[in-house]
Amino acid sequence: MYMRARSRLQSLQEELSKYKLDAILVGHLPNIRYLCGFSGSAGLLVVSDREFEFFTDGRYTLQAREEVKGARIRIEKGKSAFAAAMDWLTERKQIKRLGIEAAYMTVADREALAKRVRRVRIANAPALIERMRMVKSDEEIARIRTACELGSRLLDPLTDVLKPGRTESQVAGQLELAARNAGADQMAFTTIIAGGRRSALPHGRASFAAVPDEGFVVCDFGVILSGYCSDMTRTLHVGCPSTEARRVYGAVREAQQAALEAVRPGKAVGEVDAAARKLLHKRELGKYFTHSTGHGLGLEIHEAPRVAAGQTEILRPGMVITVEPGVYLPGKFGVRIEDTVVVTETGCEILTKCPKELLSV
Amino acid sequence: MYMRARSRLQSLQEELSKYKLDAILVGHLPNIRYLCGFSGSAGLLVVSDREFEFFTDGRYTLQAREEVKGARIRIEKGKSAFAAAMDWLTERKQIKRLGIEAAYMTVADREALAKRVRRVRIANAPALIERMRMVKSDEEIARIRTACELGSRLLDPLTDVLKPGRTESQVAGQLELAARNAGADQMAFTTIIAGGRRSALPHGRASFAAVPDEGFVVCDFGVILSGYCSDMTRTLHVGCPSTEARRVYGAVREAQQAALEAVRPGKAVGEVDAAARKLLHKRELGKYFTHSTGHGLGLEIHEAPRVAAGQTEILRPGMVITVEPGVYLPGKFGVRIEDTVVVTETGCEILTKCPKELLSV
Repeated sequence: MYMRARSRLQSLQEELSKYKLDAILVGHLPNIRYLCGFSGSAGLLVVSDREFEFFTDGRYTLQAREEVKGARIRIEKGKSAFAAAMDWLTERKQIKRLGIEAAYMTVADREALAKRVRRVRIANAPALIERMRMVKSDEEIARIRTACELGSRLLDPLTDVLKPGRTESQVAGQLELAARNAGADQMAFTTIIAGGRRSALPHGRASFAAVPDEGFVVCDFGVILSGYCSDMTRTLHVGCPSTEARRVYGAVREAQQAALEAVRPGKAVGEVDAAARKLLHKRELGKYFTHSTGHGLGLEIHEAPRVAAGQTEILRPGMVITVEPGVYLPGKFGVRIEDTVVVTETGCEILTKCPKELLSV
Repeated sequence: MYMRARSRLQSLQEELSKYKLDAILVGHLPNIRYLCGFSGSAGLLVVSDREFEFFTDGRYTLQAREEVKGARIRIEKGKSAFAAAMDWLTERKQIKRLGIEAAYMTVADREALAKRVRRVRIANAPALIERMRMVKSDEEIARIRTACELGSRLLDPLTDVLKPGRTESQVAGQLELAARNAGADQMAFTTIIAGGRRSALPHGRASFAAVPDEGFVVCDFGVILSGYCSDMTRTLHVGCPSTEARRVYGAVREAQQAALEAVRPGKAVGEVDAAARKLLHKRELGKYFTHSTGHGLGLEIHEAPRVAAGQTEILRPGMVITVEPGVYLPGKFGVRIEDTVVVTETGCEILTKCPKELLSV
């Protein structure tokens, strides 16, 4: 862990000079965790051409000592991490140009920083750490694999508890308990269990609606294990599916397969999206596919790259993305099928190894 | 709901001219929910001297129609809420000075806004909406009360499942399932179940450590019901408490009582903090009380006011805050006792009506 953290910090350090930055102030917690291991909820990291300094507050003394690798820990009594970092920066005269994470820092914090550390020129740093995080190390892939295996094992208990009359929320609660019992740190996002007409809401959460006597139930869930996320969706059917239901399900499955086949090194992520979209257009369902095909995941449930129309990021071995086309017929039903995959040398490997046949419960 | 949303929007509108703002761009989702009812995860609201406009994207068409009251809904095909709002702003020539939420808007978004809507002068708006939200309406208090009642009813099932050998995570999972079965929308924050030495970590989550055969277990949990949060902590004891354990527990309980008695209209929140701190100093435990005494809660689990040393916000009837002193003896154990209370005309009413005697399980 020490070597890994140090090498990530050094890689970032080497990037700084390319952008004429003397240092970068890292505040986005997943970036901090990636660089130095700290998993708490208050901290700041400064990477300069000379130093790696991690700031937190008194609540995290023990945790920082246990977790932080490769950086010096600084805790100033009675001061927030931000205040401590600003004080430290005022004393580092060699830092003349400081990069910030413009996508995460608030306007208020930027102004406080500019006011307190007057000497420094503040510049928006490019997404250096997000780019590093996009291609996973073997160890990270192993962790995501384990999280996905755990997530996949939840499909059986889920099928058992998905009964007409239970509320979606109760089903989600059982699923989450099974996840905890299986060793998940926590869920990666708010569990979606959306049945009947509600399955047509691409962002429906588990509600107090009952699981229908007949119809689709979109089940979208993920766990966090050792800090890394899993993400999968299966759409189960209660009772006997109609011809239309089978047709739509079949089309989404074909679309997902087409997208999976498009995942390989050298391809742009936009082509993965296009593959799914093209298939659904052919089945005259294109206009009901109202979101993008997927997203990167790792320490965060949504991270780079976006797998969406027109996106030009090139797939490389070690990237981990979701592939999740869906069709939503308003007022009727919706179907989504999602896997987490890792890009390999020749294509991709599905990490959420669960059946995708139309399953009636 | 319509009248309520409209009156909140109009109150905000009336504030604008005091700060020479022609409009305010609201992006913080709890503020949006408060003002116009939308509970989804992507939206922006513009309140100008003439108009109330809510922007979201195609995923939320149905949900916006169901939820949004008092504002016009604008969805531009293929555009994010932010892009749609910026386009709209470029066309509103009468908006010359636009307030933003500096505590929430990112540096990147501010720059995108400044670039796209060149004509407009951007100014940091004061925390107008946060101030409105600080004093709750009767309906909001009723919702928080119901959430707190639900939260309080979880103590019994929690006591049942808290057994030596089970992991903290399993206990948390059972608690969360009980919350879902009782009708909670979701948990308000990551459940803390921290036993034995881990109880001395003020921010310990439920881990894979087993509940100890003997010792304290800090249980800090809250639910969300109809959008509003509950928050409470009870510290249970497994087995027979030592003299020291009883002494510390008694001191924290006294400190909490002292703080509760300090909650009344006209007092500064800092005095509530001081009351708890003073008692713990008298018991020679002051230096082990390493966090502040509480926080406001409502649509968010942490909102204004901060109940901390030196804070000068004056308590008013209708404010809802937590009162949660704690003592953490590193390497030994910790105790925290927390209630959610509403400020009344004469003092406060505890909403988390649960016993606070030292409970051995």
